[in-house]
Amino acid sequence: MENFNRLSLNQITTEKWNLREAVEGCVRAGIPWIAPWRHKVEELGLKESKKLIQDAGLQVSSLCRGGMFPALSRAEREKRIDDNKRAVEEAAELGTDVLVLVCGPSADKNIDGARKMVADGIEQLVPFAEGYGIKLAIEPLHPMYAAERSVVVSMNQANTLAEAYRPDQVGVVVDVFHVWWDPDLYNQINRAKGRILGFHVSDWIVPTPDMLMGRGMMGDGVIEIARIREAVEAAGYRGPIEVEIFNKAIWDQDGDYTLNQIKERYLSHVLVQPPIKIK
Amino acid sequence: MENFNRLSLNQITTEKWNLREAVEGCVRAGIPWIAPWRHKVEELGLKESKKLIQDAGLQVSSLCRGGMFPALSRAEREKRIDDNKRAVEEAAELGTDVLVLVCGPSADKNIDGARKMVADGIEQLVPFAEGYGIKLAIEPLHPMYAAERSVVVSMNQANTLAEAYRPDQVGVVVDVFHVWWDPDLYNQINRAKGRILGFHVSDWIVPTPDMLMGRGMMGDGVIEIARIREAVEAAGYRGPIEVEIFNKAIWDQDGDYTLNQIKERYLSHVLVQPPIKIK
Repeated sequence: MENFNRLSLNQITTEKWNLREAVEGCVRAGIPWIAPWRHKVEELGLKESKKLIQDAGLQVSSLCRGGMFPALSRAEREKRIDDNKRAVEEAAELGTDVLVLVCGPSADKNIDGARKMVADGIEQLVPFAEGYGIKLAIEPLHPMYAAERSVVVSMNQANTLAEAYRPDQVGVVVDVFHVWWDPDLYNQINRAKGRILGFHVSDWIVPTPDMLMGRGMMGDGVIEIARIREAVEAAGYRGPIEVEIFNKAIWDQDGDYTLNQIKERYLSHVLVQPPIKIK
Repeated sequence: MENFNRLSLNQITTEKWNLREAVEGCVRAGIPWIAPWRHKVEELGLKESKKLIQDAGLQVSSLCRGGMFPALSRAEREKRIDDNKRAVEEAAELGTDVLVLVCGPSADKNIDGARKMVADGIEQLVPFAEGYGIKLAIEPLHPMYAAERSVVVSMNQANTLAEAYRPDQVGVVVDVFHVWWDPDLYNQINRAKGRILGFHVSDWIVPTPDMLMGRGMMGDGVIEIARIREAVEAAGYRGPIEVEIFNKAIWDQDGDYTLNQIKERYLSHVLVQPPIKIK
């Protein structure tokens, strides 16, 4: 068990499971952490979700997700802030202190304007989150999602946004899938020292079957996962390591099989960097 | 005609046309520049291609492409350099002074090592290219191609590579599709002053239908194309503007139709920035 004490199932990896099934799966597999998604929590109800996770003895690594700040009208932007406040409350209720922010795409062609809306949204959310003891974890997404999911696309950008606040207010998530390509990655991980609030793993498979659903199981792709983990640890992060995989083939396979595969690959490709081989 | 004096057809945009058809299409459409691809030139033969283009009165904006430097063995890397030398010769013969470099993916998981091989490859190629009056134009590709096409993924990285040389030896290509997402874009375009050797346009459509074949016609997506053009011009670039679109639907349509569409969108979305509207 000792080896898996930081392992967390990001619930999207077993997308076909509801929260009860995911929690029971983690218990069977001996995975001590879980990162629930809000739509799955809503399905079961917040109180029931909390009780279920607590009774199972699992810890919550983060709640996915807040963010989605840019919108065309002031009214819509305020609605998004309200929804983020609900996410903060839910995170606190579920017993995690980390709310992951996927910051949102631009509502029009003005990407600079959208980036300003993200900064404004975070600024509005921070005092509220602080009241609940919740840290906002900015997750830079891969640049290929800039038009549809997040105008925050690099560690540099996430660090700059976060540094306007104290590390106990706003930090960053390092997801290997989103950042592995970045020539400035190790420098930016070092810059995030004391501010890393999450570490997510999966892999970049070649050829990539799909922009959204093409992430791979650790070890099936080209990312130097263990090297990035070491850098994240050198920057002071010792928290849970979430496995977050969007992949139709993995979603379609048996959940228990997936969890066992995760454990095996966690040992062989996250904790240890296998020798470089031809892809 | 005056309005189209910088317009260039990157030949991949009419992929179904051979070089003769593309040249004839440009003449019919009054497009004064063309950027041939090497496999199309090979099809027709170098001398014949040169004659064809010259007789038609077209100018060659660049040759696509050199690069692809990283490889596992020294022998294979030397083979790639040799192939790049052939590309330099072909570019000179065709009457352009710009060879576009798509630098290549890593041959294994060692992305840092691959980046070093790119720098080494360029270093070996520069004196040879100089002998032919050919400038090497490093084109940073979108980070989503890092594993399959180029470990050079940002303007920052391309600028750093180029700055090891004089501007008449090595420069950069700005392709809006590859760089539009970059928060540091305008700063890096400014940094490239005097070193911009090409400007490529297309658009980022939402939702993106495919990683490789999902580029859109200018105006169909979210990129601020005219704004980027203005920045490129402020950095001193006044050369041809290549339309380079990988898109199955566009490839499947009639070539003359595509060329007319290009001309229309060039006027309405490249030379002029239309008012921002909801996407």
